[in-house]
Amino acid sequence: MFTFTLKKTDKFTRARLGEIETPHGKVATPVFMTIGTAGAVKAITPEEVKQLGGQMILGNTYHLHLRPGEDTIAKHGGLHQFINFDGPILTDSGGYQVFSLSKINKVTFDGIRFQSHLDGEEIYLTPEKSIEIQQKLGADIIMCLDECAPYPCDPKYAEQAVARTTAWAKLCKRAHKTRKQALFGIVQGSVYPDLRERSAKELLEFDFPGYAIGGLAVGENTGTMYDMVEITAPLLPADKPRYLMGVGKPENILEAVARGIDMFDCVLPTRNARHGYLYTSHGVIHIKNAEYKEDTRPLDKNCDCPVCASYTRSYLRHIFMADEPLAQRLLTIHNLRFYLKLMQDIRFHLQDGTFKDFYQKTKEKLKPRPPKPKKVKRK
Amino acid sequence: MFTFTLKKTDKFTRARLGEIETPHGKVATPVFMTIGTAGAVKAITPEEVKQLGGQMILGNTYHLHLRPGEDTIAKHGGLHQFINFDGPILTDSGGYQVFSLSKINKVTFDGIRFQSHLDGEEIYLTPEKSIEIQQKLGADIIMCLDECAPYPCDPKYAEQAVARTTAWAKLCKRAHKTRKQALFGIVQGSVYPDLRERSAKELLEFDFPGYAIGGLAVGENTGTMYDMVEITAPLLPADKPRYLMGVGKPENILEAVARGIDMFDCVLPTRNARHGYLYTSHGVIHIKNAEYKEDTRPLDKNCDCPVCASYTRSYLRHIFMADEPLAQRLLTIHNLRFYLKLMQDIRFHLQDGTFKDFYQKTKEKLKPRPPKPKKVKRK
Repeated sequence: MFTFTLKKTDKFTRARLGEIETPHGKVATPVFMTIGTAGAVKAITPEEVKQLGGQMILGNTYHLHLRPGEDTIAKHGGLHQFINFDGPILTDSGGYQVFSLSKINKVTFDGIRFQSHLDGEEIYLTPEKSIEIQQKLGADIIMCLDECAPYPCDPKYAEQAVARTTAWAKLCKRAHKTRKQALFGIVQGSVYPDLRERSAKELLEFDFPGYAIGGLAVGENTGTMYDMVEITAPLLPADKPRYLMGVGKPENILEAVARGIDMFDCVLPTRNARHGYLYTSHGVIHIKNAEYKEDTRPLDKNCDCPVCASYTRSYLRHIFMADEPLAQRLLTIHNLRFYLKLMQDIRFHLQDGTFKDFYQKTKEKLKPRPPKPKKVKRK
Repeated sequence: MFTFTLKKTDKFTRARLGEIETPHGKVATPVFMTIGTAGAVKAITPEEVKQLGGQMILGNTYHLHLRPGEDTIAKHGGLHQFINFDGPILTDSGGYQVFSLSKINKVTFDGIRFQSHLDGEEIYLTPEKSIEIQQKLGADIIMCLDECAPYPCDPKYAEQAVARTTAWAKLCKRAHKTRKQALFGIVQGSVYPDLRERSAKELLEFDFPGYAIGGLAVGENTGTMYDMVEITAPLLPADKPRYLMGVGKPENILEAVARGIDMFDCVLPTRNARHGYLYTSHGVIHIKNAEYKEDTRPLDKNCDCPVCASYTRSYLRHIFMADEPLAQRLLTIHNLRFYLKLMQDIRFHLQDGTFKDFYQKTKEKLKPRPPKPKKVKRK
């Protein structure tokens, strides 16, 4: 019930145009998945995600396991029904959050022992347990439990993490029973090309319907991230989707698409919106800045989102400063549309055969600019 | 540009069906105005207010004066453009918030000196200043500056407050220049029938196009509130709208409608939503309660709101407990729809000639029920 169709590969870059088919519909790739950590996209409804061009939502197994628990969600018929989204959903394995959110965690060969960040309860997450939870959640794509090594990480530890990731992938594959769900493997190997190669090679044995590249965007510099993607993507089968986990800034996504990545997820558009950090076609706007106090222009005159159609910078700054709950929502809508429009543009230019040109122009536009000195003082 | 048409008076009660016409459209009365204190209805858009059956939004002059300031709003062309609502808007005078929000306030015969609750800045609000601000805000209905006496209040002080309210009404009327805006007077007099009568009589001299009853729902018991409404409403002209400020619970609104009130505003539906206190056709639900953890039913099976159509109690409880910003919004939509549906039902039955029956049945349904002892412990 899961297929991936590679529709086109760009002539000048490694960028790919494709289509994933799931029990909950089709997804045009490259795709950016909107994050709905605890069963809700922050401040907006799944309906709005769709209206903004979103195709897919990502749920976090760690959060959903702790609260409300997979059994409560299963009682609704699964995560789709629980959150009221009939499009495709992906859940991660829970492993990453264990490393990033739990103060105490201990990796053993069988799994990870950790404390809930909510109430300190001790939990033991094994590959089998992760799959069991994800089966109850019922997402269309589920992920193997992996060990996301920290950065920096010495080669010896990184090698152990790769070995564990392979061993766990085997156990996940064995535990995976629901054919309606596609189980993806995750390539680890930190910033070491030989380990990335080994991890990919070992996982290919299991013939997963899709592969993720994990353990990046964890602190390494951007160039290293691009290098790792450049090395790893070609090791993965051309006829299966490739998912770069947790990435990233708009420019990171563009670069990774050019290196052959099909799927992305990141908290940046939604989290940055809540902090008043807004993406526009002419650079980033910090809506708090006093310069927007009386600015009656839209956030971005080139943006087609409903917020730019109806509200001024002055209004958005006012409700942001006044801590109005509506501010989070309106700013989230704008930022998410920026990301989803970027993905639509990428797909359009891939289809059109003009991706290389688009890539080069957009790269220039997305280049971080030095802040204007006057504005910096005001912040 | 402002008219009120009294369409029907109920045969058995004093309830009235009417229509207000403003430069921004018509309003069927009795009407509940949705509160958009600082230029935003908490967590929802003006578009959603309309979709839920809302006809009118109330803005608070005190809040908007402090932030972002009436000049910023005037630069947008007024509050309608600023908040993106093309329906009728009412602004209050700012007086009430001075009394309720400012730690230090001093009433003189000319106005009120107070400190901003935001930054402690000292501000002097006079009748002329209140009108000047409200003219810049550009609402369809604006209010005279009045003195809302505290409760309890001795007759002597209440009498002084009435005298000041009359004096200020005169100054407001003189300062009021914009004919596009209708200026309403506010009857004060605390819980003293003779003072209510005197206040009404004095204000009638100014021939305002509408009258409010102020100084109620400030701590007096419900019976007293109803008595004051019952005494005051008939003192006001039948051909002008009557607005009971800051009221109230659904049952208060119903009772006040039966006593001849046409307009209402209250923070309860929106504020209670944010605290997980939800109105349903079978009583109030505290969504935090553990009993809803696995409850896959809608909040209210008799409710026609989009939240009841799409989400379970279990889901709403989960996102409320997880502090998801979406919770505030969905719960606000539900509660606001409850209020606006009540108003639609009231108008329907007034039109239909079946208000008395509806009033008696709904009164029974809205009666506060004793909490179930078991549930109270869990809270």
